[in-house]
Amino acid sequence: MTPGVAFFYGGMVKAKSVVSMMMMSFGAMGLVGVLWVVYGYGMVFGTPAIPGLLGNPFDGSIGLGNLLGIDEAGAMNPDLNGLAFAGFQATFAIITVALISGAIADRAKFGAWMVFAGVWVTVVYFPVAFWVFNLDEGWAPLWGVNDFAGGTAVHINAGAAALALALVLGKRVGFQKGIQKPHNVPLTLLGASLLWFGWFGFNAGSEAAVDGVAAIAWINTLAAPAAAIIGWLIVEKIKDGKPTSIGAASGAVAGLVAITPACNILTPGWAIVLGVIAGAVCALAIELKFKLGFDDSLDVVGIHLVGGIIGTLYIGIFGAGIGLLDTGSLEQLGKQAGAAAVVLVYSFVMAFIIGWIIQKTMGFRIKNEDEVAGVDTTVHGEEGYALETV
Amino acid sequence: MTPGVAFFYGGMVKAKSVVSMMMMSFGAMGLVGVLWVVYGYGMVFGTPAIPGLLGNPFDGSIGLGNLLGIDEAGAMNPDLNGLAFAGFQATFAIITVALISGAIADRAKFGAWMVFAGVWVTVVYFPVAFWVFNLDEGWAPLWGVNDFAGGTAVHINAGAAALALALVLGKRVGFQKGIQKPHNVPLTLLGASLLWFGWFGFNAGSEAAVDGVAAIAWINTLAAPAAAIIGWLIVEKIKDGKPTSIGAASGAVAGLVAITPACNILTPGWAIVLGVIAGAVCALAIELKFKLGFDDSLDVVGIHLVGGIIGTLYIGIFGAGIGLLDTGSLEQLGKQAGAAAVVLVYSFVMAFIIGWIIQKTMGFRIKNEDEVAGVDTTVHGEEGYALETV
Amino acid sequence: MTPGVAFFYGGMVKAKSVVSMMMMSFGAMGLVGVLWVVYGYGMVFGTPAIPGLLGNPFDGSIGLGNLLGIDEAGAMNPDLNGLAFAGFQATFAIITVALISGAIADRAKFGAWMVFAGVWVTVVYFPVAFWVFNLDEGWAPLWGVNDFAGGTAVHINAGAAALALALVLGKRVGFQKGIQKPHNVPLTLLGASLLWFGWFGFNAGSEAAVDGVAAIAWINTLAAPAAAIIGWLIVEKIKDGKPTSIGAASGAVAGLVAITPACNILTPGWAIVLGVIAGAVCALAIELKFKLGFDDSLDVVGIHLVGGIIGTLYIGIFGAGIGLLDTGSLEQLGKQAGAAAVVLVYSFVMAFIIGWIIQKTMGFRIKNEDEVAGVDTTVHGEEGYALETV
Repeated sequence: MTPGVAFFYGGMVKAKSVVSMMMMSFGAMGLVGVLWVVYGYGMVFGTPAIPGLLGNPFDGSIGLGNLLGIDEAGAMNPDLNGLAFAGFQATFAIITVALISGAIADRAKFGAWMVFAGVWVTVVYFPVAFWVFNLDEGWAPLWGVNDFAGGTAVHINAGAAALALALVLGKRVGFQKGIQKPHNVPLTLLGASLLWFGWFGFNAGSEAAVDGVAAIAWINTLAAPAAAIIGWLIVEKIKDGKPTSIGAASGAVAGLVAITPACNILTPGWAIVLGVIAGAVCALAIELKFKLGFDDSLDVVGIHLVGGIIGTLYIGIFGAGIGLLDTGSLEQLGKQAGAAAVVLVYSFVMAFIIGWIIQKTMGFRIKNEDEVAGVDTTVHGEEGYALETV
Repeated sequence: MTPGVAFFYGGMVKAKSVVSMMMMSFGAMGLVGVLWVVYGYGMVFGTPAIPGLLGNPFDGSIGLGNLLGIDEAGAMNPDLNGLAFAGFQATFAIITVALISGAIADRAKFGAWMVFAGVWVTVVYFPVAFWVFNLDEGWAPLWGVNDFAGGTAVHINAGAAALALALVLGKRVGFQKGIQKPHNVPLTLLGASLLWFGWFGFNAGSEAAVDGVAAIAWINTLAAPAAAIIGWLIVEKIKDGKPTSIGAASGAVAGLVAITPACNILTPGWAIVLGVIAGAVCALAIELKFKLGFDDSLDVVGIHLVGGIIGTLYIGIFGAGIGLLDTGSLEQLGKQAGAAAVVLVYSFVMAFIIGWIIQKTMGFRIKNEDEVAGVDTTVHGEEGYALETV
Repeated sequence: MTPGVAFFYGGMVKAKSVVSMMMMSFGAMGLVGVLWVVYGYGMVFGTPAIPGLLGNPFDGSIGLGNLLGIDEAGAMNPDLNGLAFAGFQATFAIITVALISGAIADRAKFGAWMVFAGVWVTVVYFPVAFWVFNLDEGWAPLWGVNDFAGGTAVHINAGAAALALALVLGKRVGFQKGIQKPHNVPLTLLGASLLWFGWFGFNAGSEAAVDGVAAIAWINTLAAPAAAIIGWLIVEKIKDGKPTSIGAASGAVAGLVAITPACNILTPGWAIVLGVIAGAVCALAIELKFKLGFDDSLDVVGIHLVGGIIGTLYIGIFGAGIGLLDTGSLEQLGKQAGAAAVVLVYSFVMAFIIGWIIQKTMGFRIKNEDEVAGVDTTVHGEEGYALETV
């Protein structure tokens, strides 16, 4: 899925920034992939070092020690379920970091991004994932929050960090409505398609079993983004007169984001309603950055933060057996809102601090003249295309 | 797979039509995905409303009620196999609609296409899928027709509708041999690759079990398109002097189409022979449109209708244990031909009527000057590429 | 995965060679797919015709006869595991051939390539795969060599053949450092991504079971390439001052190659170390061709041959329970080196002979003026792109 992010974002930037955009995803794949094995898995699923809050980076809760020490349990006799789950969860860590990069298109130093990625995943993602995904030890599931596949831990988390970095780095040269003319629409649609395909695995796989819940998660992961495409295109048609392909792709992603925390607990009918709402609201939300004046270049806030909040709260109302509709109580909604708020604030504050320190020390943003010349050539010494055949 | 269709078709059109081409597939994903959940699944697999012909849109045959009503059986206790199958079959409905769009490249209104998609899938695809895929209730399997993964319900169905729409919309401006110069060959090859990859799932998955039949379907889904590539390239080499990459991609798809109904019932040896035949015949069949004067722009007829008929009939001769070769009887061939003919005629007539009404009311085809200027800008307000780096 | 090769390579060549580059992969898919079914599977997994060395092309070791004769065992009662494994192994044969094509970019006749592919897979790949992948009969596993998913049979094999063909065809017109300016970076990154995704299947699937070894293979297939990206980018940063996206993609592939033989037998910690080494060494190794003067255009030697050797030997030192570190003995290292050397020499010599004969008879290389004009138009009559919208 992370290459999906690379292409979804890569197609939307200018042709002179495509290498930089994709490299932020591929860099995350390299760095976070390694960190996950070295201590990330332990921090998320290890024996609690701080009960409810954080795992021991160098211990594991599934009898394997941490992944590096797996041989102690015998490499020839590894635990299938534990290891498969560890591998599966690695992809969540990687993609959450990659998602953030959409906020800082065209203007980030690659080295600074890599430093940010390593620090943020360590002090923000791994703890938050312990809170949310460690079903036995994290405070969120123990409290009763329903976040099946990462509405808070992935999308609100990434969206809040994206907002922080957009503020730290500041606006692109020439920032105004219409600045974002995608240079390669098929690449963006390819990215959205890979994301959707992978998302079936994320959502259904989060059940960690082949059962009815996995199947309903799968159906909802089809129904909600399908409905969100429709929702987004209708808003676009009304607002701008024409339905766009970038809108269809963004709508699908918005629907995927919104259904992520909720895919296990909604009937397909309510998943469709959620999809329409998420598509329509996010289509409006992406205008915010021009009104409020922050340059979240590729709408990580408008899609992942807003979509994540919608999906997380929606459970409190329409969640089967737990929402307001079935119980007549606002209790679940309160828990969902609480978890969303905690993750949002923690991620935003920490990301802002990390980003600000990087900006003040090694520098996060490239020089304006390098941005105008193109971040690809100035930072990576590459051009995305050489299409002339003569 | 449906993004595969988007890219396979998208790469073959002009650069100024790529957005429109891809949007017809993504639009189908949105609309048909929703309709499937709302009433499509019930129409195909619900308790028969009309025995042998049609299911009850709002009831289900697998004890779940229709998908919207799934909560009645308890969202927390859903039926794995039923739901997984429902999700799997959704993708067939979506892709069948998307396939049709190849016939009307460069010149269709998006809104009209969406109306067509919604009506056609309701009055043609869902009933035909009941006939063919509802193994307990549909007339085709009850009669003994072997259509494992959709030679009739998907490919003949889409191909016949494509022919109807090509006639309704008429020829593109400047239609003649050589008009179709692909603007992005790698995109088309990517589409073909995604299709092939997904097709393994379609064909092997249609067994709905992990068994020997699924395995042989998998092998045949490798062997037939491989052979069809060879068959197509040889014909091309003889006919035009040079083997092309578009030919290789088209050959693979032709082989995939032909093996679709037959993948469960052919030995790999006969699958190879079928592949060679399908590749070679379809390579010739795509010339028909220039001779007969219909503008099936991206050869949905030449590949899906012709390939679907070849594969469906081939079973009557070489199907293990049921074909002429093993039984000495033409009975199976007659059944196969009958099913092919019924689906072909029904889909063609209905698609023509639906398309004609749309054309006469809201209009299906864009104005000639908009077509020349490019459907992407005139209908979607987008351009597929902005590759200049200065 | 083989389309992954097509795009990985295709993006790196000039825009006027992209069709040719991709066609060598798609041609291999067609031809080798057919040959595998007709006699390849029998040669690799059939009853030994020459004990330890070669299977009977028209017999099978799993009671099915060869694939063509599968009906003898009853097409309706096929053996799931045998057939699924046969299908799985087909993809290894196809991709190994496709990998070779990277050495002869821009200058190969398609017909000559297809002849080479058919002969080489028959006299080199099928025997070598018998040696290595036939766990019950091949000399390598019987001797105790650990090559889990093809370090020798796939990567050293392809890399050695690539070196031979680079020598037979000679250097491209204008060969010098800097000649290889990728025409489409996103396409190459897409190829690398598809390769990585497929590689999870190759490596974990090589266990042919859902168990702990498959899970550890999966984790290692994540960890090693992640580390290799870092290793490659660090070398590049030191050497050239800038980390490139082509470097990230190449690093990932180098890590994948190196972990291939070893993914079942390394702890994730040692897999990370292997990844860093493979990434760093291959980043240096690709300079060799300029020093030694052979035009291995897309670095099949520097990545697949070198990476394959690194991974194969590494097992002899760090393999859990069998390497020097655990046993204090060099015995395993000797076996690993022996197998690597045998495959390298056999493949190189045979590929050179086959290529040389083709060059002297039908001609393998196109004329220099056709190379300058572009192999796509001269050999395939196609252009990769037509992006003008006017």
